[in-house]
Amino acid sequence: LTTEPQFIAMMRGIATNSAARGLMDDAAVIAVGTETLIITHDMMVEAVHWLPDANPADVAWKLVASNLSDLASKGARPIGVMLGYMLGEDAWDAAFATGLNDALAYYGVPLLGGDTVKAAGNLDARSIGMTALGLATTAIVPARDGAKDGDGLYVTGTLGDAKAGYDLARLGHSEPVFLLTAFNRPAALLDEGRLLAPIARAMMDISDGLFIDAQRMASASKLAVTIDVSQIPLSSEYAAYYDDTLQSRIDAGSWGDDYQLLFACADNLPLPVAATKVGHFTIGDGLTLMDGETRLDLPTCLGFEHR
Amino acid sequence: LTTEPQFIAMMRGIATNSAARGLMDDAAVIAVGTETLIITHDMMVEAVHWLPDANPADVAWKLVASNLSDLASKGARPIGVMLGYMLGEDAWDAAFATGLNDALAYYGVPLLGGDTVKAAGNLDARSIGMTALGLATTAIVPARDGAKDGDGLYVTGTLGDAKAGYDLARLGHSEPVFLLTAFNRPAALLDEGRLLAPIARAMMDISDGLFIDAQRMASASKLAVTIDVSQIPLSSEYAAYYDDTLQSRIDAGSWGDDYQLLFACADNLPLPVAATKVGHFTIGDGLTLMDGETRLDLPTCLGFEHR
Repeated sequence: LTTEPQFIAMMRGIATNSAARGLMDDAAVIAVGTETLIITHDMMVEAVHWLPDANPADVAWKLVASNLSDLASKGARPIGVMLGYMLGEDAWDAAFATGLNDALAYYGVPLLGGDTVKAAGNLDARSIGMTALGLATTAIVPARDGAKDGDGLYVTGTLGDAKAGYDLARLGHSEPVFLLTAFNRPAALLDEGRLLAPIARAMMDISDGLFIDAQRMASASKLAVTIDVSQIPLSSEYAAYYDDTLQSRIDAGSWGDDYQLLFACADNLPLPVAATKVGHFTIGDGLTLMDGETRLDLPTCLGFEHR
Repeated sequence: LTTEPQFIAMMRGIATNSAARGLMDDAAVIAVGTETLIITHDMMVEAVHWLPDANPADVAWKLVASNLSDLASKGARPIGVMLGYMLGEDAWDAAFATGLNDALAYYGVPLLGGDTVKAAGNLDARSIGMTALGLATTAIVPARDGAKDGDGLYVTGTLGDAKAGYDLARLGHSEPVFLLTAFNRPAALLDEGRLLAPIARAMMDISDGLFIDAQRMASASKLAVTIDVSQIPLSSEYAAYYDDTLQSRIDAGSWGDDYQLLFACADNLPLPVAATKVGHFTIGDGLTLMDGETRLDLPTCLGFEHR
């Protein structure tokens, strides 16, 4: 199998238009008349992006939220989504439609169109795709590559809740609801993204994990980034489930699916939304992890790279 | 399995925004500032939309062309595409990338972004999706529902060539190239679409077959349509391969994949591109097939309904 990085490298050779942002960003950014259009496309695959016994309504919700989260990270206002759907079993499709309707109604985003197909053979590799479209709300759309030497690295909300929800779901637990909801029905932080876009020098959503995504932001910005894991914000539910240990903080930083916003901005700037400073950028390259004053070895897995 | 019409009916209940055009059109149409954005999404599935031994470069070409054809049918100028790709085998992926590059370069359309995923299990239900974006070139974007009583029904080019190419490909033939190319590398008629958009009262591309697509246009326009199969334009290559019989004309009218443009316009209007009048609209409903003065029974299959 071609690895995802190899294929993306091939695509990068094709996607030379500046609107593609070198395929280094969460979304494409293209001028349309007096507006700036923001476009993102995400695919979800059975048994990769959702558990086989997942509630189809949750799958639909997550597909919507993960797409809208990419728009949020650019400070965009959504104008609609397109759905590419592979038919499954009757009940599954009907439940998916319900979840889709709920998520789109919750975010006030219209379904514009799409395509529906059938698989030829068995259904164990079903995939569903969504394209989300939005309009920029700032003249400069935050990219991954805008961090400056001395900037702080900030994250909204708490991290690791989706990981805890995933663990709970696999064990068949139905509580705590907060953690299961973080996994099953993540939020797209559209309001937060719009408020942060004017002051964020770089912004992305944490879909693959704090460490790997911070490393990507630093690499795109041609800087080094240092994260203090003792500053990683944990929910009381997460801390109660795993205990608040160094390892549970490292786990929270190397797990994705939280869809919190990660951004770089000038230090000590008043922030328009609640966020936690977890690190800072300096001249150099690479990721350094600290636990207060103690330097840590990097964990083998910094996040999900091949999803 | 949910049938495609049932699922689309569920989606229609969700897609209530006027930009979705009731999911009755080839593309969504949404105002963006001073411009009008046209958006379409098509999925292709292994063993459904491409033969297992198909050239992956041809698969990529067809994905691009079928998406751009939807834009052509709205008279739109493409501004970019997004790709949702499920990884396959190394050589397949590399050949796909080459075909994608060729097709996008041919049409001068940038790849803006997308998503790459892996299947969890076996690869026999791989699917690939593409979203194409364009800008309207006319104040009124032709829909399916604009035909008027007395309008002529016109089609560009010749029909059935993709069917002949499909038959030839299945038999392992490599000639005639014209027919194989019609199947493997269909053209998106972007220039023709832009020239026709100002005068077409309804327009769509023939992706599922002349008869079924004309019936859809008539139904959307709340009119009846009559097609004279003796007027269906055939290429000399098609006529030579199947003979020019009534049956071969019916086959050409009930087979898709030709991506010619089908449009309604006032009779006897000078046309800006070469096109053939194959029928006309009248008060009433339904499709009537004639062979000159002789009324024909409708064939059981009017085209591809469930792809």
